Amino acid sequence: MEKLYAEIITIGNEVLAGYTVNTNATFISNRLRECGIAVKWVTTIADEPAAIKQAWTYAAGRARIIVTTGGLGPTPDDITKTCIADFFDAPLEKNEQATANLKHFFEHRRRKMTGLNLDQVLAPKGAEIIANPIGTASGLIMRRDNRVFGFFPGVPSEMKAMLTEGFIPWLKAHLELPEIHTRLLRTTGIAESRLYEMVRDIVDSHAHYALSFLPKQTGVDLRFTLAGGDAAEIGRWLEFIARIRRKLDKYIYTDQERELHDVLLEQLARHRLSLSVAESFTGGLIGDQLTDVPGCSRVFLGGITAYANEAKTELLGVDEATLRNHGAVSEQTVLEMVRGVQKRFGSDCAIATTGIAGPGGATPEKPVGLSYIAARYKDHEAVREFRFGANNRRLNKLRGAMSGLEMLRRLLREHGQG
Amino acid sequence: MEKLYAEIITIGNEVLAGYTVNTNATFISNRLRECGIAVKWVTTIADEPAAIKQAWTYAAGRARIIVTTGGLGPTPDDITKTCIADFFDAPLEKNEQATANLKHFFEHRRRKMTGLNLDQVLAPKGAEIIANPIGTASGLIMRRDNRVFGFFPGVPSEMKAMLTEGFIPWLKAHLELPEIHTRLLRTTGIAESRLYEMVRDIVDSHAHYALSFLPKQTGVDLRFTLAGGDAAEIGRWLEFIARIRRKLDKYIYTDQERELHDVLLEQLARHRLSLSVAESFTGGLIGDQLTDVPGCSRVFLGGITAYANEAKTELLGVDEATLRNHGAVSEQTVLEMVRGVQKRFGSDCAIATTGIAGPGGATPEKPVGLSYIAARYKDHEAVREFRFGANNRRLNKLRGAMSGLEMLRRLLREHGQG
Repeated sequence: MEKLYAEIITIGNEVLAGYTVNTNATFISNRLRECGIAVKWVTTIADEPAAIKQAWTYAAGRARIIVTTGGLGPTPDDITKTCIADFFDAPLEKNEQATANLKHFFEHRRRKMTGLNLDQVLAPKGAEIIANPIGTASGLIMRRDNRVFGFFPGVPSEMKAMLTEGFIPWLKAHLELPEIHTRLLRTTGIAESRLYEMVRDIVDSHAHYALSFLPKQTGVDLRFTLAGGDAAEIGRWLEFIARIRRKLDKYIYTDQERELHDVLLEQLARHRLSLSVAESFTGGLIGDQLTDVPGCSRVFLGGITAYANEAKTELLGVDEATLRNHGAVSEQTVLEMVRGVQKRFGSDCAIATTGIAGPGGATPEKPVGLSYIAARYKDHEAVREFRFGANNRRLNKLRGAMSGLEMLRRLLREHGQG
Repeated sequence: MEKLYAEIITIGNEVLAGYTVNTNATFISNRLRECGIAVKWVTTIADEPAAIKQAWTYAAGRARIIVTTGGLGPTPDDITKTCIADFFDAPLEKNEQATANLKHFFEHRRRKMTGLNLDQVLAPKGAEIIANPIGTASGLIMRRDNRVFGFFPGVPSEMKAMLTEGFIPWLKAHLELPEIHTRLLRTTGIAESRLYEMVRDIVDSHAHYALSFLPKQTGVDLRFTLAGGDAAEIGRWLEFIARIRRKLDKYIYTDQERELHDVLLEQLARHRLSLSVAESFTGGLIGDQLTDVPGCSRVFLGGITAYANEAKTELLGVDEATLRNHGAVSEQTVLEMVRGVQKRFGSDCAIATTGIAGPGGATPEKPVGLSYIAARYKDHEAVREFRFGANNRRLNKLRGAMSGLEMLRRLLREHGQG
C-alpha cells in the first residue's frame, strides 16, 4: 500500500507573531496519524495570497493530503476562499449546501444574518462542502491530480468538529488507509544518552522499526510506531518493545499517555494509601501537580510548604539543632521533614524536598542546585542527594518534584505496593 | 532601513505527529518581533536530511534570519549537525569552545560523560558556538550570503536560555535592527470585550497606532508598538498610552514583562511585609508561583495546603461547626482559613482559597467553579465569591491563584501600601 503523506498549512498572522500557539496543527496531526496518514510538513504563513499559493504549490509537490486552516471567516482579512478560486481556477458561486447550512445555523440560534454572512454561501465551483456544526464558515474539499485539499476555519472548536465529523470520515470513505500501531514507554530519572546506551544493541539490530526518543524536562519518552504488518510482524515488533521494556524496567513509570503524578495517585488509590507533602524549594509544586488530577482528594490530604526555617521547626517539627548543625539543605533535615509531615497529617505516605533553587543561596560547600529529597511509606524511607543545574530555578523545581514522586513510586514498588 | 524577515524551522517527528505542541516557535516569534524582526514562515519537518536541506534552501530564498530548532542532541536521530556540515560544506571538527562548555557541564554536575556525549564537542567548521547553560548540546550560528542561520536544541528550556542569552544579543551586535518602541499594560479581573468598550473611543480615534489585545488565561495584555518615529511622534504615542492607562488604572497590575506574583512580591518587599498562604482547591499553585521568583524568601514564609477537612481544622484552626454549617466551600470557611494561616505563620499578609475545581464535587447549591478567596493585610481583609467555568480544572486553579494575588495587591493599595 502506498504510504500517505500529509501537509498542514496554517494561515494566520497571530501564530507568526507568537501571540497564539499553533494547537490546531497538533490536533490535525494526531487525527491524521490515527488513521495512518503521516504529516510530514507543517507550514505557517501570513494572510497573503502570494504566500498562500506558494505554500499550496510546494505542498502539492510532496503530499497527497493538504489541510489548510484559517482565513475562511466573514471579515475582509479572510482571503482563503478567493485564493482557492484562483489556485484551482474555480470561480466562486452560490453553493446550495452552504446556503442550507447557513440558513439552518441562523434559524436554530434565532439570530439574524448580517451582510457579512451573505458571502459565506459562496464556494469555489466543484467544492465539496463540510458542514460547520458550531459556526457560519463551511469547510471545503477540493481535489486535483490525485491530491486532496481540505480547508477549515482557524477557530479551534469549529475546525476540530469539522475535521472529526466531516473530513476524517470522508478520507476513510475515499482513500485506502493503512493500520497504524503505536506504543509508548515513559521514563524518568535517567538521561537520554544513558538510556540509549542501555538499549543500543537492541535498537541497532532492529533499525527498521520506527522509534523516537523524546526528551522532556523531567524524563524521556520512547515512542514506537509500526504501519501495517501481518500478525507475525506485529508479534516480532511487540517482542522488540518487550525486550526494551525489560532493560529499562526500573525507569519506566507508565506505558500510557499519563503524567507521573497521575500514575502515582492511581497506585496509591489502588492500595488505599494516603499522601501528604512537605515542600521547601519546590514551594507547592508537588501539591499543585497532584491536585490537577480529578478525584485526587481520595489520596492527597494536603501539605506544608515550609519556606522559612521557623515553619520547618514549628509546623514540621524539625529539630533546631538539626538546622544549626547540618543546615536546612541537608539529608538530616529532609528526613525530619518527611517524618514530620507524615505524622502531622497522619498519612500513609509522604514526600519532602529541600534544596537551593538558585540563583542565590549558595555557599562554598552547597552549590545552587543541591537538593535533598525524601519519600516515606509507613516506616520505610528513601532519601537522595541531587545536583540539579545552576541556572534555571523553574527547571530545578520541576526536577525536584518529579524526583520526589518517582522516589515514592519506587519505594512503594520495593515494598509490594507497585 | 530594510525590513528584516525571519523563518523558523522546527525539526521533529514529535511535533509532526502531534505529540508535542510547537511552543518553541511561539517563543522565538515573540523574541524576534521584540527586536523588529518579523517571522513570515514557520515550517515543521521530519528528522530527514533531504527535508531539512530543502527547508533551508527555501528559507534562504525568502528570509534573512533562519532559526532552526531540534536534532542537536546526542542520539542517532539527532542529525541536524551532519546536515549543517553537508549544507554549508563545513566538515565537523572538534570545537574548543564546545569542548570547554561540555567539560564544565559534567564537572559541575559530577556526572560522567558517555561515549555519546563525545560527539557533542564536534561542530561544523566556521560555526560560532552558543553556550548551553542547562544541557549538553551547544547552539550554533552559521552565516552565508548575508543570511544568518541559528541552530538550537529542541528542548524548550535549553532553546529559550540560548536564544535569550546568546542569539538575540548576537543579532543586536551584528545586524542593524530597526528601533521598535513597545509598551505593555497587563490587566486582570476584566474581560477583553469590557476592557475594549472602556477605551474604544480613544483606540478608534488613533487607529494608526498598533495595539493588540491579548487575552490570556488569567487576564488581558495590551501591547503597543511603534516602529521608528521622531520625538514629537513618540510623545503623541506615549500620551495616547497614558490616556488608556488612566481609564484602566484599577485593572492594570504592571507595565513590565512580569507576572502578578512577581509584582506582588516586590510590593510586599518594598513595604517589608511577609506573606503566608492557605490553599485548598489551588493545591499549592500560589506557593509554587511565588517561589518561582528568586529572592522570594524575604517575603514568603510558607503555606498550608489543606485539602482534607481535617487539615483545615487541625492545621488552620477552622471551626468544625463552620465546616458543618456552611461547608468547606464558603465565605465563612475561607475567612477562617486566611486568619488561621496568618496567625500560624505570624505573617503580615495572607491569602486563602477554597473552591470546587471540578469535574466532581458539585451539589445543587454549589456548582463546579464556585470559589471563595480571601486576602488579609494586618487586620484588614477582603473576601469574594467567584464563579469560574465548569469545564477546566487547571484553568479554575489558575484563575483562583490570580484572583487571590490580585485581591491582596488591591487591598494593600487601599491601605497605603501600593
